[in-house]
Amino acid sequence: MAPTSLAARFKQTVTPASLRAYLAEFISTFFYVFAVVGSAMASRKLLPDAAADPSSLVIVAIANTFALSSAVYIAANASGGHVNPAVTFGMAVGGRINVPYCSVLLDFSDAGLCYGLHFLESDHCRTEEMTGFGASLLEGVMTFGLVYTVYAAGDPRRTSLSAIGPLAVGLTAGANVLAAGPFSGGSMNPACAFGSAVVAGGLKNQAVYWVGPLIGAAVAGLLYDNVVFPAPAPDSVREEVSEGFSV
Amino acid sequence: MAPTSLAARFKQTVTPASLRAYLAEFISTFFYVFAVVGSAMASRKLLPDAAADPSSLVIVAIANTFALSSAVYIAANASGGHVNPAVTFGMAVGGRINVPYCSVLLDFSDAGLCYGLHFLESDHCRTEEMTGFGASLLEGVMTFGLVYTVYAAGDPRRTSLSAIGPLAVGLTAGANVLAAGPFSGGSMNPACAFGSAVVAGGLKNQAVYWVGPLIGAAVAGLLYDNVVFPAPAPDSVREEVSEGFSV
Amino acid sequence: MAPTSLAARFKQTVTPASLRAYLAEFISTFFYVFAVVGSAMASRKLLPDAAADPSSLVIVAIANTFALSSAVYIAANASGGHVNPAVTFGMAVGGRINVPYCSVLLDFSDAGLCYGLHFLESDHCRTEEMTGFGASLLEGVMTFGLVYTVYAAGDPRRTSLSAIGPLAVGLTAGANVLAAGPFSGGSMNPACAFGSAVVAGGLKNQAVYWVGPLIGAAVAGLLYDNVVFPAPAPDSVREEVSEGFSV
Amino acid sequence: MAPTSLAARFKQTVTPASLRAYLAEFISTFFYVFAVVGSAMASRKLLPDAAADPSSLVIVAIANTFALSSAVYIAANASGGHVNPAVTFGMAVGGRINVPYCSVLLDFSDAGLCYGLHFLESDHCRTEEMTGFGASLLEGVMTFGLVYTVYAAGDPRRTSLSAIGPLAVGLTAGANVLAAGPFSGGSMNPACAFGSAVVAGGLKNQAVYWVGPLIGAAVAGLLYDNVVFPAPAPDSVREEVSEGFSV
Repeated sequence: MAPTSLAARFKQTVTPASLRAYLAEFISTFFYVFAVVGSAMASRKLLPDAAADPSSLVIVAIANTFALSSAVYIAANASGGHVNPAVTFGMAVGGRINVPYCSVLLDFSDAGLCYGLHFLESDHCRTEEMTGFGASLLEGVMTFGLVYTVYAAGDPRRTSLSAIGPLAVGLTAGANVLAAGPFSGGSMNPACAFGSAVVAGGLKNQAVYWVGPLIGAAVAGLLYDNVVFPAPAPDSVREEVSEGFSV
Repeated sequence: MAPTSLAARFKQTVTPASLRAYLAEFISTFFYVFAVVGSAMASRKLLPDAAADPSSLVIVAIANTFALSSAVYIAANASGGHVNPAVTFGMAVGGRINVPYCSVLLDFSDAGLCYGLHFLESDHCRTEEMTGFGASLLEGVMTFGLVYTVYAAGDPRRTSLSAIGPLAVGLTAGANVLAAGPFSGGSMNPACAFGSAVVAGGLKNQAVYWVGPLIGAAVAGLLYDNVVFPAPAPDSVREEVSEGFSV
Repeated sequence: MAPTSLAARFKQTVTPASLRAYLAEFISTFFYVFAVVGSAMASRKLLPDAAADPSSLVIVAIANTFALSSAVYIAANASGGHVNPAVTFGMAVGGRINVPYCSVLLDFSDAGLCYGLHFLESDHCRTEEMTGFGASLLEGVMTFGLVYTVYAAGDPRRTSLSAIGPLAVGLTAGANVLAAGPFSGGSMNPACAFGSAVVAGGLKNQAVYWVGPLIGAAVAGLLYDNVVFPAPAPDSVREEVSEGFSV
Repeated sequence: MAPTSLAARFKQTVTPASLRAYLAEFISTFFYVFAVVGSAMASRKLLPDAAADPSSLVIVAIANTFALSSAVYIAANASGGHVNPAVTFGMAVGGRINVPYCSVLLDFSDAGLCYGLHFLESDHCRTEEMTGFGASLLEGVMTFGLVYTVYAAGDPRRTSLSAIGPLAVGLTAGANVLAAGPFSGGSMNPACAFGSAVVAGGLKNQAVYWVGPLIGAAVAGLLYDNVVFPAPAPDSVREEVSEGFSV
């Protein structure tokens, strides 16, 4: 069913419906990154040594929860509000979205926004004390949880529970930040980590924020629809999710 | 369909249904302003230097989230619980509400309440360090996000997701306060900023809280129903929103 | 339709369905009071001077929100989870519940629980600095907001929004505590204030926690169903609320 | 209807549907334990004396609320997301789940995860100041509230309210932690307490975390479906809960 030639794929990428989806996704991503980076900047403004203060962890965690819930909510039925290339990657691996759509989203989502916001502040974003395998494993595990929840939230078989899907995604993100914030940062987001790192002038820990999260996202994508909740077929899922919308 | 003569417009403004809507809106606005201004006063009472404390940011942000979610919830199907002239303006620009209705709401909403509450305290409300273009841009961006979420929450095409619409609006407001509280105040509300400023005796930064938010609200109103989620027509939207209610 | 003789009223009060409703209400009330008084005790244990700490306000406010949302949720379709004689009074004044039912609930709800929990701790519960008219007015205004939200949450005309009714009630309570906690205590609950006062050995400020809240609750009860959302008749409301339940 | 021979029971335990339920439950349990233990570790990292800080109580309480809501949400319609042998025990006592299923879950749920996470940190997990009867009673009362809420959340008679069931469970857990965190720890979970205790090298207070919670869970299981909300029969309940799923 999916178009296979490169030209057909490109055509699918620039339809009015797709462009609207990109705009919806951009708006969601913008407000999510705004809240996450903004709340970290706000913490540091209020308390220069914010990285070592429990209140700052509360601020960043609830900003994540509130903003991600909203971001998923306002993008529902258009682009999904992934606001994170790892999530988009996980959705593509599991077959919930098509690759060309995904590839465009991957390009223009958070990296630029994170870069821009951090540039205004011109110092480093998160405490990134852990390095190498440990942090990558931790970020990968958390990204697994996040993508698994995104799959659950978009699962039309959850009938009445689908009403709180966007909240569930936000709550998962917030819980992860509360658990791992002072260790690996709780980023779960390669693009934002990349944007922050460019401002900070160093890319040496980048693998941490790419390898783990992408593996975690892919495993979640394969596991949810194929192993834990195997039926019905993904094609009918996509149709039901977008019912009643012209996009 | 909408009445165009001034007399007809005025008539529409004072029907029993409209008066009930104004009362519903007043109750929502009162409790929202009560929580937002009250929580700021509570923070300052507990900690005189509250403006520089991360816990106070948490208090004001969750008060915003809790109170705005409630305010939208209790006014649902009557007046919408905009509690903010910028939101009402954005709803009118996008064609979701009629102008006469809006004009009355604009008059009597928050300004008086904010004035009253701040008068009791007799000192200045929020840290308003940023001035001019930067703060106005920041407030405008956040008001865009707020009004866009209000549009999404009132969109009858979101079927099961409409259940958590009031929460989504509150979460957006809270996320914005967490991000911008220590910078521009996270007001997103010209009327309340005006009321506070009158008490403080100075109106020099007022443009910040009017120009940005009104532009942001208008852009959100035009974008949501016309660009990102273009169908169906707004007339049928309004009907479905008020189904089963006599107001 | 409602029985008018005293004997008939008493009979209605001791049916198996009523007894189950009382049990449901007791369980809800217990866990609400447990969380509210317990969180205040926890704050004081962690920080002896907790009354002057913003984190303690956050603790008590979110304990109120979490516990009241849960209490209303678990009692839904049985007793309503009023957990507060002022709310029960407001529900009776507005005609949502019958008086005999209400009178029994009034008797055995929170006062005893609050007394018991505070007795374990043997010092005074909340900062009650304000006295007389100001505090009573403040508590009355907040109780109005709480009871008005309870009416909205139990309104079957709110179709899909009724799903988050229990959350809306909890969010209103939390917002009020954030705004008024350090001023009048944000009790909104005469019974709990009474139980705490008996332990503390003084009843001089009791009028504050009875006069205001009861007036606020009555006004909310009269306003919601009769003025702001006047139709349909309250009898059909009650029936729809308890549909599909045998209690 | 339920199989009674040991072989038949074992067969039921290893069907593909059961194995998927165990996997779903493991994922939920993992992320719940990750957030609860992780947030406690994060608090201690930020503030060595975190046990005595109100912000740390907020962190652990909202981590519980966020993570448990998510855990129940993502396991819905598969395993229920009990993430706690006391909850599983309460579900089995009340007749909502079958014993063989339960027995397997009991084996492999949290104890190992808690052990693993605490082992990484190598010091004791929670302040466990209370001992003996008092703490066991407190933990038992809270577990009663938690299991009672789980029953309510899984009750198909709650029609529209079932949408926020996972949130209600998380809010109850968070409210309990806010109330009892500094006293008995607010564990409500024998397995996690056991895992932590093994790392800490002492099992002397273990009875506290087993006797109370298991009794509380059993009483809640017997009370909800049999006394407070007695109809309809539990068999039809189970069917409706899993409608539309193949597991």
